[in-house]
Amino acid sequence: MTRPALPQRATIREVGPRDGLQAEKPLPVEARARLIDALSLTGLRKIEAVSFVSPKAVPAMADAAEVWSRVQKVEGVAYSALVPNRHGAEEAVGVGGFASLQAFIAAADAYNRENLGKTVEESIRDVQDVVEVGREAGVPVELSISAAFGDPFEGDVPAERVAAFAERMVERGIAGISLGDTTGMASPTRVWDVVARVRDRLPETPLNLHFHDTRGTGMANVLAALEVGVTEFDASIGGLGGSPFAPGANGNVPTEDLAHMLADMGIECGVSVERLADAASLAQELLGRELPGHIWRAGPRWKPRGDG
Amino acid sequence: MTRPALPQRATIREVGPRDGLQAEKPLPVEARARLIDALSLTGLRKIEAVSFVSPKAVPAMADAAEVWSRVQKVEGVAYSALVPNRHGAEEAVGVGGFASLQAFIAAADAYNRENLGKTVEESIRDVQDVVEVGREAGVPVELSISAAFGDPFEGDVPAERVAAFAERMVERGIAGISLGDTTGMASPTRVWDVVARVRDRLPETPLNLHFHDTRGTGMANVLAALEVGVTEFDASIGGLGGSPFAPGANGNVPTEDLAHMLADMGIECGVSVERLADAASLAQELLGRELPGHIWRAGPRWKPRGDG
Repeated sequence: MTRPALPQRATIREVGPRDGLQAEKPLPVEARARLIDALSLTGLRKIEAVSFVSPKAVPAMADAAEVWSRVQKVEGVAYSALVPNRHGAEEAVGVGGFASLQAFIAAADAYNRENLGKTVEESIRDVQDVVEVGREAGVPVELSISAAFGDPFEGDVPAERVAAFAERMVERGIAGISLGDTTGMASPTRVWDVVARVRDRLPETPLNLHFHDTRGTGMANVLAALEVGVTEFDASIGGLGGSPFAPGANGNVPTEDLAHMLADMGIECGVSVERLADAASLAQELLGRELPGHIWRAGPRWKPRGDG
Repeated sequence: MTRPALPQRATIREVGPRDGLQAEKPLPVEARARLIDALSLTGLRKIEAVSFVSPKAVPAMADAAEVWSRVQKVEGVAYSALVPNRHGAEEAVGVGGFASLQAFIAAADAYNRENLGKTVEESIRDVQDVVEVGREAGVPVELSISAAFGDPFEGDVPAERVAAFAERMVERGIAGISLGDTTGMASPTRVWDVVARVRDRLPETPLNLHFHDTRGTGMANVLAALEVGVTEFDASIGGLGGSPFAPGANGNVPTEDLAHMLADMGIECGVSVERLADAASLAQELLGRELPGHIWRAGPRWKPRGDG
């Protein structure tokens, strides 16, 4: 068995300020801006900064425009905003300064209904509205497809359905696809299956993968994806995104852990692991609880902390 | 880039009762036997049950013979004992019933001195004594090489040194090698490097890999190893083995998480994920604290618990 090939470069898109914080007790506007600012200085080139969703539905994401106005925009960092529909897209475009808008939808009807209160077909109309707003404003719209590796309600989600769905959305003007393992149901072989199908249909479309570490497979899934040439991954600082009542349970892949592994594997991603560890410490200070990431605790392998 | 090949079968050796518990507050003899008994009923084929080390050095491993006498030995399970030297080996052989003895040593002098209080050369004499006792008793002796992927004192440990060292020990009668990432310094490319070198020199010797998840790379390292044909891994139930003061920090790869990922990848390892999750719950009950494993919390992907 031969050693798999790996890409030379990869990009981490930080989603902590959005996917990470959205399930938390709401933080003050200043604290949210401060976290984004700390992340902007780590070398990360992409940060999902805010979300223009209903503050009733997601209280922790309220005041997106205010957070955004306080952020020190750093050159070379592409900030994005999550938008659920035409209204959210218009707000984001009105505020301005985002490199892209992120629409979202689930490939599985049960999950979409449960989480967005709509059928997939209804959500597709929302995504089309976002694409329209983005086109008029000259801002590309990317799409997050949730539950792309499995759905807690339906179980398996066929890879071919995810791929066909992604293709359909790209035909409607989506500029990039992010496949979300929203509830941590992916494993390496599923990653290979889904990526192969999506690549078959969309060889030219930028592809991002978004793993949650709910079942301990997050980093293995990243490795599997790298081995088939995927080079963009979502991650959240400290592994933010889990429930405060179940530390370590289901946040995103921790940014600093991912950056550390990539660095040790010689895959360039342009970030400072040490600064990410500092940002993870800041996130913990702001939230007042420990996060599941490993590197802020153990230190990078080239500078172990404690008993290593 | 093509999808890597994978083996069809793998073996998990459970080390929770030994590597997992050794850094904990000592558990009563009955509790330790009860945990081993629960593990024996999960389908695991290998369990490192006890350690005949000095009770002064490792109080949590005291009374090995008594624990072992209470264990319900299950047919088809190969139980092993860790032994540091001739004295420990004689005790283990005197008690009887072990399928193998596990000797240990570090490939790095600084680490060996720090942890065993001896130079590597002094430790080699101990290992030779164990081999001798094993040979007389007809019990094979395997060797755990600690810090094989990096050493917090020395930093990198050259793969060639680990391989040469393993070969030297096999020439002295060692029947199988376990390479330990004792302080979580491995990453997938290091796994490929070390495995390639060891295989070059020892193509016929059984090879086990022992990963700690100190820096979040444990499961990715397992995937990397599977891709180059390694099929035996240590793991500890619940991810036991971290410090009680830093949950999630540096235990072994959690057995139930590993078994779950293997199952979803179609790699047969003969265990029941559900029973392992139950054993993880028992371990937590006995210790009175939460363990970092994921599956006891989230449930297997085919039967999610909570919000999945």
